[in-house]
Formats: sequence, C-alpha cells, structure tokens
Amino acid sequence: MTIPTAPQLTDDLSDQMHQLYRHLHAHPELSMQEHATAELIEQRLTGLGVEHFRCGGTGVVAVLRNGDGPTVAFRADTDGLPLAEDTGVDYASTATGHLEDGSEVPVMHGCGHDTHVAVLLTTAQLLVEARNAWAGTVVLIFQPGEETAAGAKAMLEDGLWDRAPLPEVVFGQHVMPSLAGTISYSAGDAMALADSWKVTIHGKGAHASQPQDSTDPIVLGAHMITRIQTIVSREIDARRAAVVTIGTFHGGLKENIIPASAEFTLNVRAFDPAIRDHVLGALRRIISAEAAASGAPEPTVEVLSTFPRNYNDPAATAALVEQFRQALGEENVVEIEPLMGSEDFGALGAAIGVPSVFWMFGGHDAATLQGEGPLPVNHSPFFAPVMEPTLSTGVRAALTAILSRVGA
Amino acid sequence: MTIPTAPQLTDDLSDQMHQLYRHLHAHPELSMQEHATAELIEQRLTGLGVEHFRCGGTGVVAVLRNGDGPTVAFRADTDGLPLAEDTGVDYASTATGHLEDGSEVPVMHGCGHDTHVAVLLTTAQLLVEARNAWAGTVVLIFQPGEETAAGAKAMLEDGLWDRAPLPEVVFGQHVMPSLAGTISYSAGDAMALADSWKVTIHGKGAHASQPQDSTDPIVLGAHMITRIQTIVSREIDARRAAVVTIGTFHGGLKENIIPASAEFTLNVRAFDPAIRDHVLGALRRIISAEAAASGAPEPTVEVLSTFPRNYNDPAATAALVEQFRQALGEENVVEIEPLMGSEDFGALGAAIGVPSVFWMFGGHDAATLQGEGPLPVNHSPFFAPVMEPTLSTGVRAALTAILSRVGA
Amino acid sequence: MTIPTAPQLTDDLSDQMHQLYRHLHAHPELSMQEHATAELIEQRLTGLGVEHFRCGGTGVVAVLRNGDGPTVAFRADTDGLPLAEDTGVDYASTATGHLEDGSEVPVMHGCGHDTHVAVLLTTAQLLVEARNAWAGTVVLIFQPGEETAAGAKAMLEDGLWDRAPLPEVVFGQHVMPSLAGTISYSAGDAMALADSWKVTIHGKGAHASQPQDSTDPIVLGAHMITRIQTIVSREIDARRAAVVTIGTFHGGLKENIIPASAEFTLNVRAFDPAIRDHVLGALRRIISAEAAASGAPEPTVEVLSTFPRNYNDPAATAALVEQFRQALGEENVVEIEPLMGSEDFGALGAAIGVPSVFWMFGGHDAATLQGEGPLPVNHSPFFAPVMEPTLSTGVRAALTAILSRVGA
Amino acid sequence: MTIPTAPQLTDDLSDQMHQLYRHLHAHPELSMQEHATAELIEQRLTGLGVEHFRCGGTGVVAVLRNGDGPTVAFRADTDGLPLAEDTGVDYASTATGHLEDGSEVPVMHGCGHDTHVAVLLTTAQLLVEARNAWAGTVVLIFQPGEETAAGAKAMLEDGLWDRAPLPEVVFGQHVMPSLAGTISYSAGDAMALADSWKVTIHGKGAHASQPQDSTDPIVLGAHMITRIQTIVSREIDARRAAVVTIGTFHGGLKENIIPASAEFTLNVRAFDPAIRDHVLGALRRIISAEAAASGAPEPTVEVLSTFPRNYNDPAATAALVEQFRQALGEENVVEIEPLMGSEDFGALGAAIGVPSVFWMFGGHDAATLQGEGPLPVNHSPFFAPVMEPTLSTGVRAALTAILSRVGA
Repeated sequence: MTIPTAPQLTDDLSDQMHQLYRHLHAHPELSMQEHATAELIEQRLTGLGVEHFRCGGTGVVAVLRNGDGPTVAFRADTDGLPLAEDTGVDYASTATGHLEDGSEVPVMHGCGHDTHVAVLLTTAQLLVEARNAWAGTVVLIFQPGEETAAGAKAMLEDGLWDRAPLPEVVFGQHVMPSLAGTISYSAGDAMALADSWKVTIHGKGAHASQPQDSTDPIVLGAHMITRIQTIVSREIDARRAAVVTIGTFHGGLKENIIPASAEFTLNVRAFDPAIRDHVLGALRRIISAEAAASGAPEPTVEVLSTFPRNYNDPAATAALVEQFRQALGEENVVEIEPLMGSEDFGALGAAIGVPSVFWMFGGHDAATLQGEGPLPVNHSPFFAPVMEPTLSTGVRAALTAILSRVGA
Repeated sequence: MTIPTAPQLTDDLSDQMHQLYRHLHAHPELSMQEHATAELIEQRLTGLGVEHFRCGGTGVVAVLRNGDGPTVAFRADTDGLPLAEDTGVDYASTATGHLEDGSEVPVMHGCGHDTHVAVLLTTAQLLVEARNAWAGTVVLIFQPGEETAAGAKAMLEDGLWDRAPLPEVVFGQHVMPSLAGTISYSAGDAMALADSWKVTIHGKGAHASQPQDSTDPIVLGAHMITRIQTIVSREIDARRAAVVTIGTFHGGLKENIIPASAEFTLNVRAFDPAIRDHVLGALRRIISAEAAASGAPEPTVEVLSTFPRNYNDPAATAALVEQFRQALGEENVVEIEPLMGSEDFGALGAAIGVPSVFWMFGGHDAATLQGEGPLPVNHSPFFAPVMEPTLSTGVRAALTAILSRVGA
Repeated sequence: MTIPTAPQLTDDLSDQMHQLYRHLHAHPELSMQEHATAELIEQRLTGLGVEHFRCGGTGVVAVLRNGDGPTVAFRADTDGLPLAEDTGVDYASTATGHLEDGSEVPVMHGCGHDTHVAVLLTTAQLLVEARNAWAGTVVLIFQPGEETAAGAKAMLEDGLWDRAPLPEVVFGQHVMPSLAGTISYSAGDAMALADSWKVTIHGKGAHASQPQDSTDPIVLGAHMITRIQTIVSREIDARRAAVVTIGTFHGGLKENIIPASAEFTLNVRAFDPAIRDHVLGALRRIISAEAAASGAPEPTVEVLSTFPRNYNDPAATAALVEQFRQALGEENVVEIEPLMGSEDFGALGAAIGVPSVFWMFGGHDAATLQGEGPLPVNHSPFFAPVMEPTLSTGVRAALTAILSRVGA
Repeated sequence: MTIPTAPQLTDDLSDQMHQLYRHLHAHPELSMQEHATAELIEQRLTGLGVEHFRCGGTGVVAVLRNGDGPTVAFRADTDGLPLAEDTGVDYASTATGHLEDGSEVPVMHGCGHDTHVAVLLTTAQLLVEARNAWAGTVVLIFQPGEETAAGAKAMLEDGLWDRAPLPEVVFGQHVMPSLAGTISYSAGDAMALADSWKVTIHGKGAHASQPQDSTDPIVLGAHMITRIQTIVSREIDARRAAVVTIGTFHGGLKENIIPASAEFTLNVRAFDPAIRDHVLGALRRIISAEAAASGAPEPTVEVLSTFPRNYNDPAATAALVEQFRQALGEENVVEIEPLMGSEDFGALGAAIGVPSVFWMFGGHDAATLQGEGPLPVNHSPFFAPVMEPTLSTGVRAALTAILSRVGA
C-alpha cells in the first residue's frame, strides 16, 4: 500500500493549531471534569461540519464519513493533572479544580494531552479539507479521564461501539520527552498493565509499653512489605516484566501509642496479563496470610484503578512503521523497548477485538534533552513540549496512520 | 519509728480540697504552659504563709521550715494533656491550648495530675496547721511538664537543688485506675526508662514502574522495622524487660510514586539502664546498617524525649510501706510489679544522689473497676477518678510519708 | 524447727565417696541406657540393707523407713552426655555409647550427674547409720534420662508414686560452675520450661534459574524465622521471660538447585506456663501462615522434647534456706535469679501436687572461677568439678534438707 | 551464500555413530577428569588422519586444513555429571568417579554431552571424506569441564587461540528436551551469565536460652536472605532478567545450641553483564551490611563458579538460521526465548572478539514430550535422548553451520 500525497499543514492552519494549543494548555481540567474542553471540541467539530456525539460524560466522538471504504479510529485523551505548573511559558495554566474530597488544587496539562487534542482537531480539519485524498470512515475519539483509567471505561460503558461505526484498527499517540520530530514505537507490548490497590491493616492499639495487648499493625505491615518482595524475586519468570511498588505506608499518630490500624497503597505493573493475574493473586495470598500470622483480621483491599493492556498488534505495527519511515524518514522512526508506564487506550480496541497501535511522538528539542539537571518528563511541573516540530509531527503521524487505511 | 497522731482532714478542709480539685480539673494547661496553675499554687502557698519560689518556668517550690530536723521533699506534677474530655462530670474541662506547631487543641487533666496538686496543697495546709506534730524542713515541688519529660529537667537546670534545702529522700505519688483507698508500690524499679526517637529515612524517589531508579524508603523502612525486632528477641536477657515500639511509620503521597523519604518514630522501654543503653546502641547499629544495605544515606535520628529511671530505694521503700500498712491497713497496701510506663520523677532524687520512693494511689470505685467495657485508664478521655476516697487517701499517704521522716 | 546434730562424714566414708565418684565418672552411660549405673546403685543399696525397686527402665527408687514421721523424697539424676571428655583428670571417661540412629559416640559425665549419684548414695549410708537422728520415711529417686526429658516421665508412667510412699516435699540439687562449698537458690521459678520442635518445610524444587517453578523452602524458612522474632518482641509482656531460638536450619544440596524441602529445629524457654503456651500457639500460627503466604503445604511439626516447670515452692524454699544458712553459714547460701536452663525434676512433685525445692551446689574452686579463658561450664568437655568441698557440700545440703523434714 | 550438496550420513556411518554414542554414554567421566574420553577422541582423530593437540588438560583440539578459505570453529563439550543413571537403557552408565573431596560418586552423561561428542566426531569424518565440498580450515574443539565452568577457561589459559588458527566464528550446539529433529535458537542472548558463591556467616555461639550471649548466625542469615530478595524486586529494571537463588542454607547441630556460624550458597543469573555486575555488587553490599546490623564480623564470600555470557551475534545468527531453514525445513527451526541456563561456550569466541552462535537440537520423541509426569530434562537421572533423529540432526546442523562458512 502506498500513501497518496498527504494533506499538508499550511502556515495558517499551523498558526490556528498553535493558538488552539495555547488555549488548551492554559485551561486544563481534571479527569472526568473536562467540561470546557469537551465543549471546545464540540464547537470546533461543529464548525468543521463533522458529525459528533457525547459519550462517557465529557468524552466526544466525531465520525467523518467519506463514502465507501474502511473504518479507522483514532483516539486523543483530554484530561490534565492536579499539579502546579512551573514551566514559565507565557501560556502557563493558573487553573484550579476540585478533587473528589472537595479540596481545591492547581491543574496543569502536565502530561501533554493538550498536544493530543490540538493535533487531532487539526488532523480532522485536514481530513475534511482533503476529502478527495481518502475514502471510508474516520472515528475520532476525544477521551476523558486517562490519568485515572476511568475514561475509556466510561466511554465503553456509555455504548461507544454501539454508537460509532466499528473500525478495523484503533490508533493513538502520546507526546513524550524524546526528540521533537521523531516517532518511537514498540511492537507487541507497548505499555504495562497497571493495578493500584489500597490495603487497610486492621490491628489492635495499645500503649507502646504493652505490645502484648496489641496486634501491631506497623510490624505487620512491615512484614507484608518484605514478604511482597518475594513475588517478583521468586514467583515470576525472570524474562517477564513485573513490578510491585508500595507507594505509600501510613500508620500511627504518636511514638508511644501502637495504632489500631495502618494502610498502604501499592501499584502493580506487568505486560503479560497472566503475569499480572499471578501477581495480584500472590498479593491477596500474602496480605491475607501475613494478617493470619499476626492473628489479625483479614485486611481490607480496595481497588483504586486498573489500567488495561496496551498491546500493539505486531502486523499492524509493522505495516504502519513502514509508512512512518516513508513519511518521516528512517532516522525519525525509532524502535524502543515497551514502556513500564500505563494507558487505558488499549481497552478501546480490545473491547471489540480489533488490533490497535499506539506510538510516541517527541516533544523536546536537543538542547532540553542534553541539558544538565533532570529532564522535564511527563507529570513534572516543568514539562513543556516545544510547540514545533512537536505538533506538526503529531499531525503528520496521525494523518499517515489514518491514510494508511483509508487513503485513496 | 512510729508516727504521732497525724493531722486529720476536717470536713471543712475536705470541702476546700474538693473545690480546689474541681477548679484544677476544669482548667488544665499543656506541659510547660501551666501559668494559671502555677499562679494558683503560689496564691495558696502565700495564703498559708509558706515560703516559695518559681523554678523551671512554671514550676513552684515551697519550703516549710519547722525548726531542726531532717529535710524531706515531695513532688506533685501539674500538667494536663492535649485530649478532648469525655467524662461527663459537671466540672469537665472545656479548655484549649496551643501545641508547639501553633495548632489549637482541647486540653484535659487526663492523667490525674489535678489530684496530685489538690492533695499536695491540702497536705501543705495540714502541715502548717500542725507544726507541733513535726520538726525539720519539708520541700514541696510542684513540677510542670511531666508528660513531655521536660519539667524535672527544667527545674534541675534552673537550680532546684541550689535553691531548695537538700532532702534526705524525695517522695512522689500518682493516681491510677486501681481501687480508691488503696496504695500500690513496687520496691526497686518502679517505672521504666523511656526514650523516643524520630528516624527519617533518606531514599530516592522515582516512578512506581521504575524502582531501579529509586532507593525505596518504604521497603528500607520495612526492613528496619523487621530487623529491629531482633533486639528484644535476641540481644536481651529474657529475664530483663525491654520494649521497642515503632509507634508511627509514614511515607509516600501516591500509590504510583516511590517517595524520596519516609519517617518513623519509636519508643524504648527498660528498667535497667544498661539494657536501655544496649537497646539504643543496637537501634543505631541497625538503622545505620539497614540504610547501608539499601545504599541509602545515613538516616537522621532525632531524640524526642528521654524519661529517666524511676527507682524506689529498697530500704526506704520497705520502711515506708511499713508505715503505710499501719496508717491505711494491711489490706490497702498492695505490692505490684514495676510498671512499664514512665515518669520523670526519678530525676529529682537521682540528681543529688538521694533515695526516692514513688507509689500509686487508686482512683476508681469497685463499680468502675468491675464494669463492662474498657477500664477508663490514664490518658483516656473517660478518665475520671472518684473524688473520695481518692483525694483523702492521697493526703493520708503524703502525710504518712512526710511524717515518717520529720514526724515528732 | 531446729536440726539435731547431723550425721557427719568420716574420713573413711569420704574416701569411699571419692572412689565411688571416680568410678561413676569413668563409666558414664547415655540417657535411658544407664544399665550399669542402675546395677551399681542397686548393689550399694542392697549392701546398705535398703529396700529398693526398679522404675522407668533404668531408674532406681530406694525407700528408707524409720518409724512414724513425715515422708520426704530426694532425687538424683544419673545419665551422661554424648561428649568426648577433655578434662585431663586421671579418672576421665573413655566410654562410648550408641545414639538412637545406631551411631557410636563418646560418652562423658559432662553435666556432673555423677556427683549427684555419689552424694545421694553417701547420704543414704549416713541416714542408715544414724537412724536415731531421724524418724519417718525417705524416698531416694535415682532418675535416668534427665538430659532428654525422658526420665522423670518414664518413672511417673511406670507408677513411681503408686509404688513409693507419697512424700510431703520433693528435693533435688545440681552441681554448677559456682564456688564449691556454696549453695545457690531462687524462690519461685527455679529453671525454665523448655520445648523443642523440629519443623519440616515442604516446598517444591526447581532449577536455580527458574524460581517461578518452585516453592522456595529456603526463602520461606527465612521469612518464618524473621517472623518468629515478633513473638518475643511483640506478643509477650516485657516483664515475663520468653526465648525462641532456632538452633538449626538445613536446606539444599547444591547452589544451583532450589530444594524441595528444608527443616529447622527450635527451642522455647519460659518460666510461666501461660507464656509458654502462648509462645507455642504463636509458633504454630506463624509457621502455618507463612507456609500459606508461600502457597506451600502445611509444614510438619514434630515435638522433640518438653521440659516441665521447675518451681520452688516459696514457703518450702524459705524454710529450707534458713536451715542451709545455719548449716553452711550465711555467706555460703546465695540467692540467684531463676536459670533459663531446664530440668525434668519439677515433674516429680507436680505429678502429685506436692511442693518441691531444687538448688545448686558449686563445683569449682576460686582459681578455676577466676581463671582466664572460658569457664568450663556444664556440657563442656572440660567440665570437671573439684572433688572437695563439692561432694561433701552436696552431702551436707542433702542431709540438711532431708532432716529439715524428718529430723528428730 | 548457498550450500552445495552436503555430505550425507550413510547407514554405515550412522551405525558407527550409534555405537560410538553407546560407548560414550556408558563411560562418562567427571568434569576435568575426562581422560578416557580425550584418549578416545584422539584415537578417532588419528584414525581419520586429522591433526590434533591436547589443550587444557583433557581438552582436545582438531584442525582440519583444506586449502585456502575461511576458518571456522565448532565446539563440543565432553564431561558427565555426578548422578546415578536411572534411564533403564541397555547402555546405561555404571561408572563412578571421585569428587574433589575424595568421595566416590556415580557418574552419568545426564546432560547429553555424549551426543555432542558423537556428533562432532562423525561430522569430522564427513568433512574428511568430502574434502571437495569445502575449502578452508575447520577447528573442532572438544572441551572438558563445561558443568563446572572450568573447561573453556582451562583451554583459553592453555593457549587455545595461540595454538589453533583463529576462526571468523565459533559454533556450538546442545541437546535439549525438545522434539528430536528440530533446532531451537535465539538471537542475541542465548543463555544466562551465572555466578555461584558460598557465603559463611561468622556469628557467636551460645546456649539456646541465652541469645544475649550470642551473635545468632541463623537469624542473621534469615535476614540476609529476605533482604537479598529486594535486589531483584527493587534494583533491576523489570524488563531485564535477573535471578538470585539461595540454593542451600545450613547452620547448627542441635536445637538447644545457637551455632557459631552458618553458611549459604547462592546462584545469580542475568543476560546483561551490567545487570550481573549490579546484582553481584548489591549482594556484597547487603551481605556486609546485614552482618553489620547484627554486630557480626564480615562474612566470608567464596566464588564457586562463573559462567560467562553466551551471546549469539544477531547477524551471524540470522544468516545461519536461514541455512538451517533450507537444510532442515522451516518447521524444524524454532525461535525461542533466551534460556536462563548457563554455558561456558561463550568465552571461546569472546576471548578473541569473534562472533559465536549456539543453538539447541531436540532429543525427545513426541511420546516422551506428551507423556504424563515430569519431562526427563537435562540433569535428570532419567534424561535419555532418543538416538534418532537426535544424532543425525545434530550432524546435519553441525555440517550446515560449518559449510555455511567454508562450503564450496
């Protein structure tokens, strides 16, 4: 398959995209609260004359129909993070939002989803303007709540695939702190499955001098944590990736009181669903058994989030990479290892059993990459992609992918 | 030695004592902030015509001189606790105070030091009124800040024993949740040495998926805590008491971030100073070595408090117990095991190398002791000694002890 | 009560005792195999005209009847140890014996039971020769198998107290590495309860490179051992003695094979039966739960031995100590702490609910006690009590104790 | 490059190979003691008129020179294992050998090195008989002591590459429990780096009842083992393979004695030399720090063996795999994951900086592979490859590899 001359970004369209990006960056919203962002997207789509519908609360789905041909889907996520921006750019966010507990927090597009939205709306405009260059149907998915793994789930539960045409493939991309102008990908596993739990240990309090009257939840927690290390070290094939991190542990108010309870949160990563299942099972086994070893009641386990598999279909990936190489140049398409980070993108294709491909596009210039001090990565208050060639590369990659399926 | 007819509490004096107790109970103050309490004590002493001086900030020392004879000291502690009273008594506290960090907290005489003050002021009055019954000098020490181990230290550093006559013995007593009307004691060790530390673990933060970039302070802390258990289990003669409690452990803000640091506080108890020194040395050894095992920097150890030995001189105790038996009846004087709780009383006598004796007087009636549910012990928001025979027994015990040395 | 002039050791009798001791020392036998020793004891008793019977295999019980009066029992244990003697004395043992597994081992009276036998046979002779000095019945118990906790049990199961007159008290004594000529005692707890277990961990073997195919019994065992430390550190009142020692751990044949099983043995000590019961329960709880944490089958627990309580009745002890002071001089009767070592002596009195008293008599001269290098303690290949005043003090103590009850 | 018609195994030659294999299988020798095997190899080579020399004690190197052309090397290892054969084949081994400690043990070709030798000697004969089919030089390396990682090292230290022509590539193959007739390979990492250590913990012994007099080496060892788990779980990128197995842990003789020392052996696996180095460094750090945590002296670490990297040059592997597919059929050439097992083969090429390729050939028939019960894998007493098509496939693979470089 070859690609016809792709629609090109004009200077005007480029300027519009940059202004759109500045606006989005300055007005981030928290996960599942992307109301203004959704309205903006809807306005733009309406302006382009593109059919669209709300899905999953603050999600928006656009359907570009252009005669007979394949259907392809492309997803951009839309949410920001509870983070105080410290980038110093003139379009920095001063927005705030409210967490579930009601507290007000600063909000920042610290993961670069603003680039995703700006790129996909611009791509939509190019597709609308170049209807002769393609045939078929393009479904654009503006997904909320990626950071909390809530958005893809919400859209699927809200009937995404009952309401949108079924695609033969789902594409998606993410900005990352690599060289702007380049694409990075891995075939097969793209990102890790991730599960987060909160575990509450129920002990029995007592005065510090009388441990015999207590069931010490801090000592019990310490033994759980040391025991949990054996899952990765002893239960998993060394050739399979698995991580169990205890991100927090909190127990006790005063040095001379043994508290009645303690709690910790954990985060599990794996590529292979069977490994993930084994790890979660082993965690339940150990948490339960260690409580029994202390004579404590069964701990309470609360699931905080579940990020699904993000698997790049090897054949679809190989075909697309070939197109990327032609479109962007060999040297700008880099194979990387799967990333241990997580995404809920993979759920969209998996829900209907179609392949998906997810890649990264760079957001930093060489100076930033080679600078001293820590690199401003995603989720850093200093994360500020350079606008170009970041955004135009995003557009070219998106167009390349879409046209690889529906191109004339 | 025999005791002459001891001065007796009249109904009038008893009423005054009860009113004084109600007032003190309703107006507790936090450790080292006992300003109103100190002024009240000074007023009363002045009213009795007793010589007195401030010492250690909010401490007050009274000196009753009555001709030639031995000198004896008696100590009452004066501070309340940051606790919201829930006793339901009509003289319950509604007072508040400010912690070191500036936060306002409710304050309650939750450890019964109000009984100590009411008893000792009443005892002073009886001694003043019955000068013919004794000869010598009595030093009454109204000590602040017992709860934080700051008060005895402050009085000693403020020249207590340079300014007050040196006694041949120091007495002290504490109300406890045993039967009102009874005295409890142990010869030799009375209460435990106690040391509290705050330990800050310095690790290195990273994303939860990349532990290899971190020095995980939570896993390190868990290994410190499990390792610390071996001090008591393997390094201490089983016939010697030692406790190491980790009262708090806190680290991390989010399940998917490995934090850069974590902290825990611990509390050590022992009777034998050599055992205490061994435990503290072992703690430093383990904390330092476990950090090294993780390749982490040396943790920071901050000493929060140090409670000294509270040792009842066996000979002085035996002699006094004999007097108690005569004064209160055999059945009301009970030998108990040393208590694992702590006190800074012992520092007063130890500073000048004179023996000291410390005992407990009961504060609960039989109905409370036999009631269902947890016993309202010291430091409980429900701790409410019955006024009688608690207070009058405290006075009788104090007089018996003082007159055992200076009685005519 | 006062003691009449006690029968005295003559030079002749002393010489006989020394020869007897030399013979016993040179001919030790292993626990429950004390055949020659039992025959020797029987010969001597027969020679003295004392009624006796076999009990518990190699145990011998002598009954000295001398008219009306109280009955008192005295026990000496008779077994040696599987140890190669290295004392250099001219009567050193060259004996060997066979362990249960059939292997031949050297045998030595390394715990000094030979002194117990020599002393008690000599005491029997004195009692026979001085019938006018006492009235009543004396039961002398020559007990086998103390080292393995099998002997007292065997005698009790063989009807000891159905066949011998019931005493009002049971006495016993043991030689120890303190000053010869002195007696040491503690009132109440004399020695510790002790229980030994062998625990077999059932895992699943695999190649070292494939832990995921194994249930690693060594890592499981390590976690059991670290977890077991919390019993003493967290579950026992610090004022109560408890020890849990893992004496052995064995697993694995080759560094590159994960073994299918591992085993460890443990030893528990406590004075208080309730504490002992709690520790044993906690051990079962932890061993079982840690296996569950690994997904391993329930480990196998085999009880190796159980040493009973050895409790000195306080009243009986106080009375006897008063006699010892008169007989041996104040300075030669020393109160000591309870010993963490164990004995099955306590079972004899406990079986019939009569009080018992057990004390130590010294076996070393001052030069040995003050010498450089490690003290040759019981169970050392260098343990060699000086013959005098060790043996004569043992006789005086035994006579003093017996006559304190049946003396004229 | 294409391969000319390869020399073919005749029925006669096949029979000879089978007889040779039976003989080798029945006469295994322990590592570095392969004297008879070396002599047999020398005899055969002499019979073929092939130049050869001893190297590394029991190693033999054959050099087949056939005019101008490339030089290629092929290695077969020759040693057996201390294992009692239980295969039931009529040519089963009854041989014995002596371990380093002098003990006599049964010996078995339990890893299939007998197939390697039979195949390579037969390959040599085919190369000699078909000199017109190739040109250049073939170096055949019959290496001793693979099981102990001693053989390749010994040959290199004995001047292997000073004495043999330098090849452009080194080939090697190993029989494994996959389908006979197939070849398995992985590009890049083929097998794991492996290091084995013996660690001796120096504690201090004491009676079980007096842990305070000990430095308990079993509790210390348990903490080392639990702490070591954190290396794999926290210090290694989850996408990199690493294993640390504690294969053995031994300490103590008696349940009531705390031993003075304990020892454990460990085995480390990794593909990446940097990961291996990190793990070994972390082990030293933890072992040392945990000893410090117990106040114990520095443990003694003894290196037992070091298996080098076994890395398949990707280009050389890809080229060879293409040849295998043509020679054996696509379906008989299977790409597999790298194996966590280890080999010292990689050291031969690494020493001179030339690429090497190592692959597996199957040894089991379908019935065995699908049978119930555990598969008889290498190092099992039941490991018995089917003679055909195992051996002829080994010959075809060896010829294919050699001729891919020197084929006419």
